[in-house]
Amino acid sequence: MSDAAHNSGTNATPHELKARRSGIDTRDEPVVYMRADCPVCRSEGFRAHARVFLKLRDRHVIATIHQVFGDLVGLDEAALSEAAWHRLDPRPGDLVTVGHPRPLLSMSAVRSKVYGKRMDEESLDQVVGDLVAGRYSDIEAAAFITACAAHPLDLTEMGSLTRAMVESGERLHWGRSPIADKHCVGGLPGNRTTPIVVSIVAALGGTIPKTSSRAITSPAGTADMMETVAPVELDMPQIHRVVERTGGCLVWGGAVRFSPADDLLIRIERALDIDSEGQLVASVLSKKIAAGATHVLLDIPVGPTAKVRDETAAARLTASLSKIAALFDLKLRVVTSDGSQPIGRGIGPALEAYDVLGVLQSHPTAPSDLRDKALRLSAELLELVELAPPGRGLKAATEALDQGQAWERFKEICEAQGGMRAPPRAEHRRPMPTTTSGQVVAVDNRKLARVAKLAGAPDDKGAGIEIHVRVGDRVAKGEPLYTIHSENRGGLDYALEYAKQAEGVITIGDGE
Amino acid sequence: MSDAAHNSGTNATPHELKARRSGIDTRDEPVVYMRADCPVCRSEGFRAHARVFLKLRDRHVIATIHQVFGDLVGLDEAALSEAAWHRLDPRPGDLVTVGHPRPLLSMSAVRSKVYGKRMDEESLDQVVGDLVAGRYSDIEAAAFITACAAHPLDLTEMGSLTRAMVESGERLHWGRSPIADKHCVGGLPGNRTTPIVVSIVAALGGTIPKTSSRAITSPAGTADMMETVAPVELDMPQIHRVVERTGGCLVWGGAVRFSPADDLLIRIERALDIDSEGQLVASVLSKKIAAGATHVLLDIPVGPTAKVRDETAAARLTASLSKIAALFDLKLRVVTSDGSQPIGRGIGPALEAYDVLGVLQSHPTAPSDLRDKALRLSAELLELVELAPPGRGLKAATEALDQGQAWERFKEICEAQGGMRAPPRAEHRRPMPTTTSGQVVAVDNRKLARVAKLAGAPDDKGAGIEIHVRVGDRVAKGEPLYTIHSENRGGLDYALEYAKQAEGVITIGDGE
Repeated sequence: MSDAAHNSGTNATPHELKARRSGIDTRDEPVVYMRADCPVCRSEGFRAHARVFLKLRDRHVIATIHQVFGDLVGLDEAALSEAAWHRLDPRPGDLVTVGHPRPLLSMSAVRSKVYGKRMDEESLDQVVGDLVAGRYSDIEAAAFITACAAHPLDLTEMGSLTRAMVESGERLHWGRSPIADKHCVGGLPGNRTTPIVVSIVAALGGTIPKTSSRAITSPAGTADMMETVAPVELDMPQIHRVVERTGGCLVWGGAVRFSPADDLLIRIERALDIDSEGQLVASVLSKKIAAGATHVLLDIPVGPTAKVRDETAAARLTASLSKIAALFDLKLRVVTSDGSQPIGRGIGPALEAYDVLGVLQSHPTAPSDLRDKALRLSAELLELVELAPPGRGLKAATEALDQGQAWERFKEICEAQGGMRAPPRAEHRRPMPTTTSGQVVAVDNRKLARVAKLAGAPDDKGAGIEIHVRVGDRVAKGEPLYTIHSENRGGLDYALEYAKQAEGVITIGDGE
Repeated sequence: MSDAAHNSGTNATPHELKARRSGIDTRDEPVVYMRADCPVCRSEGFRAHARVFLKLRDRHVIATIHQVFGDLVGLDEAALSEAAWHRLDPRPGDLVTVGHPRPLLSMSAVRSKVYGKRMDEESLDQVVGDLVAGRYSDIEAAAFITACAAHPLDLTEMGSLTRAMVESGERLHWGRSPIADKHCVGGLPGNRTTPIVVSIVAALGGTIPKTSSRAITSPAGTADMMETVAPVELDMPQIHRVVERTGGCLVWGGAVRFSPADDLLIRIERALDIDSEGQLVASVLSKKIAAGATHVLLDIPVGPTAKVRDETAAARLTASLSKIAALFDLKLRVVTSDGSQPIGRGIGPALEAYDVLGVLQSHPTAPSDLRDKALRLSAELLELVELAPPGRGLKAATEALDQGQAWERFKEICEAQGGMRAPPRAEHRRPMPTTTSGQVVAVDNRKLARVAKLAGAPDDKGAGIEIHVRVGDRVAKGEPLYTIHSENRGGLDYALEYAKQAEGVITIGDGE
């Protein structure tokens, strides 16, 4: 029986309602707004929170019903949330068919996992397929995430999940090797080494097609930062052209569909604050494999407030990552780094871009921690893809940076992506002076990030924070600790209000 | 720091928006509709799906943001879903304060449970408290349910959860003993023994304050059936009065707040189709303890399609129930019964009521399976509360029924609850004749339930199905197998359409 026949509901005459855009954004869980007293709800006995199968020509989606009283929605209408609207893509006057969804067969494998059974390759394929098709509710996705944390995936399961996630989305094929990539597990504020590493590796002849994410809870993601200097929303053919021309790219991963189940799973994991090693391994590796990478450098920042807390945990994660990478013929090198404080000076898209540009231009005032870390990672990656002999990567990377080849290559990549531009400078700035003299004893990254977000980051590209001090610095009373940047008066006021009220954004001690 | 101060957000000036009723029912997950470009979302960086703390005078709720584009909601407005509206109960012109929610501390205990740690009494108290306060999103509740299924609660945890659930809601106190109660674990279609058992036990001098649920996925719950003969939405003082006067009551449990966390947990369990013994034990016993019961009879139907599949599973569940009941000085007796086919003839609120009334009136055509089961359960309960000596319960129950005392008592209970009334009779009926002669070999309960729901049950009280045959009966071609009842033409058509199309609602074999 075809999907359509199966899902047209159980009545000979399927229910049809006029598709309408509700203008409501429920994130990635599709919702359909229907009158509680409409013929469909009445005859099918649908209540609020029921899941229904919506079909329009060859497109379909499973949505949750939210029932509407009063005249917000007509009796003959199905108003769609943004997620449902984009999946069905109706034209004016289109009718949407409403029926009962097919039973979610892959949930029975999830239930078995809940009770401690292993999941085989076929089950994991079906789970990922159903996730990508939008058949999982948040509740069901949460059960899957929780089950995989309660009964951790073994290496076979991790391998199957990784493969299923790779195969569920788009893939890039380069027809050659090595294809380099890098990834940082659990980012640090301001840790924008990626554009520098890509420029160095590409400048020295490497191929490094890099996709990055936007900020989810932070004041900026690499894609947000890059967008202040060049377009980042490229499709697959465009990415191919840029990489063939320059050896690298620095684009937003959201514009291509690598491992599309992963975005939903990451959102649920964040909401639950549950980390599962299996999910992390599959998430990271599936995106690299889908991007066509053959050689990947992974940076694991280790620190008490970082995602990975200590070297033991880092070693365990490294072992799993390496074993799964080997299954896919992916050469993997893992480095651990200091995850105890932010990197660079800027927090916010444009301010981080200025840090990156400073390092690429070898500007004397560029943040040396960012430069050092980018060089170290570039060195490792150059040696991994054999563009530098063992032990010679750092010298090669440093020369490419100091002699301007990396900067030239970065500009070429930006031009190829659609044209380089100068990051904005926020109009409203306010230095935050210290009220006492002394030594900087602590910097609260979480509170700094909050000030940056209140100032408007990442939506306002110029907004954020410029930090002037590091732990250990001595400051005199009245000296600025950091400067708030905002594109509008309101954002500055919000950030200031919080910064003044919150204690310990930057702590000054009076001792030596 | 007080809840209010803590939750007023992080700005000195809290954000205030005009409270408005959205007219959207999202079931029990509170939602607030706010413009994506409103000052609160902009300044706080709230995106769709963020959780916010809403406060209005002394009331508050945690809600999920759904972001609105366009002019459905004003820039200065917070439109509330039904659940959020009822929790905040705004008056015209009220302003609602929007802030960041307090971190959900009890989720850290849930996370520990995910990783296999036991939950202590304090943690379970906090989880239940946060559930009742509406602080758990569906995703978080799903993680709790899943964790308790992945790492089953031990007896100590079950006891703690039961106690926490009892203490989180209202309680009835009777100041005497015994107080009888009965419960069926996993209902069967048409299994309406409750009104008969309550009437018999009360008629013989027992005290049996019974609260029941409405249908969730079935064509009728006991409360739906009872509502066709008397009011069932009584508050605590009313329940007290009815029971003091008649010894019994038959009311809807949803109108009182016994174990209020349970409704949310049950909804999530149903959505996931995950059964956890610990949740089941706590759910069943907490409601009985809250209702003031001292002696409880539990009926566990066992059958291949019932909730409990075999006697081994029934024995295991019985052991857990008995141990936890003992912790609360609750005398518990468990009986298992045949769960392989429906009980009685009617499916649907009024049709089931007619079955019950027939048995209570000792009508010769009343369904004997319903009568027999009700008598057996009454006998067990009478012996448990020592209203009958061991082995004499059945005789006492049968006499109370046959001599009309139970029927008299049932009428008194209905009068005390607000007045007895006759169940409606549906205007539209359609007998469904068999197209072949032969023997009834199977009855598909699930499909029968679906026909009843399409006909309008449980919302249309008179709608449903009357079954005329049982497995093993011989039928001649043209003889009706069942009759569809509907209150309107449309419902009848829907039900007919499905019944004609679906195969095997009732299967006739041609053999002997």
